[in-house]
Amino acid sequence: MNSQAGGRKAASNSSQYSEGLIAGRNPVAEAIRSGKIIDSVYVSANAKGSIGAILDLCRKNGIAVKRVDDKKLDRMSGVTTHQGVIAAVGCAEYFSIAEILAYAAQRGEDPFVIICDEIEDPHNLGAIIRTAEAAGAHGVIIPKRRSASLTQTVFKTSAGAASYVKVARVSNLASAIDELKQCGVWIYGTDADGEDYSTVRLDGPIGLVIGSEGFGIGRLIKEKCDFLLRLPMLGKVNSLNASVAAGIFMYEVVKQRRSNDKC
Amino acid sequence: MNSQAGGRKAASNSSQYSEGLIAGRNPVAEAIRSGKIIDSVYVSANAKGSIGAILDLCRKNGIAVKRVDDKKLDRMSGVTTHQGVIAAVGCAEYFSIAEILAYAAQRGEDPFVIICDEIEDPHNLGAIIRTAEAAGAHGVIIPKRRSASLTQTVFKTSAGAASYVKVARVSNLASAIDELKQCGVWIYGTDADGEDYSTVRLDGPIGLVIGSEGFGIGRLIKEKCDFLLRLPMLGKVNSLNASVAAGIFMYEVVKQRRSNDKC
Repeated sequence: MNSQAGGRKAASNSSQYSEGLIAGRNPVAEAIRSGKIIDSVYVSANAKGSIGAILDLCRKNGIAVKRVDDKKLDRMSGVTTHQGVIAAVGCAEYFSIAEILAYAAQRGEDPFVIICDEIEDPHNLGAIIRTAEAAGAHGVIIPKRRSASLTQTVFKTSAGAASYVKVARVSNLASAIDELKQCGVWIYGTDADGEDYSTVRLDGPIGLVIGSEGFGIGRLIKEKCDFLLRLPMLGKVNSLNASVAAGIFMYEVVKQRRSNDKC
Repeated sequence: MNSQAGGRKAASNSSQYSEGLIAGRNPVAEAIRSGKIIDSVYVSANAKGSIGAILDLCRKNGIAVKRVDDKKLDRMSGVTTHQGVIAAVGCAEYFSIAEILAYAAQRGEDPFVIICDEIEDPHNLGAIIRTAEAAGAHGVIIPKRRSASLTQTVFKTSAGAASYVKVARVSNLASAIDELKQCGVWIYGTDADGEDYSTVRLDGPIGLVIGSEGFGIGRLIKEKCDFLLRLPMLGKVNSLNASVAAGIFMYEVVKQRRSNDKC
């Protein structure tokens, strides 16, 4: 995010729409069959006919399908004919929660997992993944719906960290949290009504939920949290950018873990 | 930064180029004479004739002049004729360093000032201003050149905090640091070669220098720092997004100040 105005504009045009896209029914079906990493498939809300076969392929391969209007597909494909379907190629493979926990065990560390609740802005998700990698987190969990995913923009904003951090992409975030809890992970949510983060012990196995900027953590997810933490807000604004808040919480965990190691 | 891909694209097109711009020689001259807050004046590298009078006006009023090529002016102005000059209207007034220090004194607090060394990305500057406001900082200092300034994009990304935080915009960042030092402020720089931030006492009057992501803190500015701090990097990436790193350092100051207050 150190580009100037012009560079940023060009980057968001090209990286979100022109690069890494496969348009048209046969090309998309072939890409899925060939085992290429497909992040999402965008399907016209009006598409009929052979689109059913593509939807079947997506279902069998666990690929997220996003129903969009034709105008969005036109914008994405530019001059290429899309026939009502465009696949966004993924930049990295996704992992399972079990793989994230196994990685923590392999390193002999208490699990430290970042859970992103509907972080839709790709620059925010990229910055969170970058910080998670630097903070030694074992993985990042994102939901399949209403979330940015490992697109090229996220990859670039993460400064490449998306290649090193294990990212799990789950259909149901609440179930993912249950899976973590069953493995002994304590879930910490970030919320304006929580306890001052600096007074809470952040050791042991930790799942840290980061809420979206507009809406915070969803009600259902908040109910699943074992602890709610807040940052002191000493001025007039009542929240921080999601990736900045995530960074402050993550480095508090780093600090407490390192000071425990020294004891 | 919680917009979706489409929204972000539209926003960066409109907020950086269409809104808040005044194009053409007479309109720009009139805007400056009327006392309107002008953030910067973009002048074609080829402009001749009456442009000299506008450059004089800018100099007299301390307005930053940016020499750009005609293509950039064309992109900025769209269908409007620019005659080689475009003024970007500022969103808020700038303050002096003396005003920032007086504000800290008025609150009976040790000064806490954020110094941005060439943060060119407006989203990063906006997020830093937002965090500074939330962390109770008394002001933010930015240089006139090679830095984003209080444009509408910065204003929006700051979630309005740019209205509440005193921002000083200086011709020479090194002199600004000298001015702070003369008033008893200790200067802390963020640098990969510094001491682990969690082992350093961050109390007393603080000026915290945030370097640009691409280049870090400039050599001259680094030499002026009393202390250099680093964040532990536990993975493979070697730096964080500038606004995330700034947030972690600022909240460490908040934490240490609050714990001192309790003693």
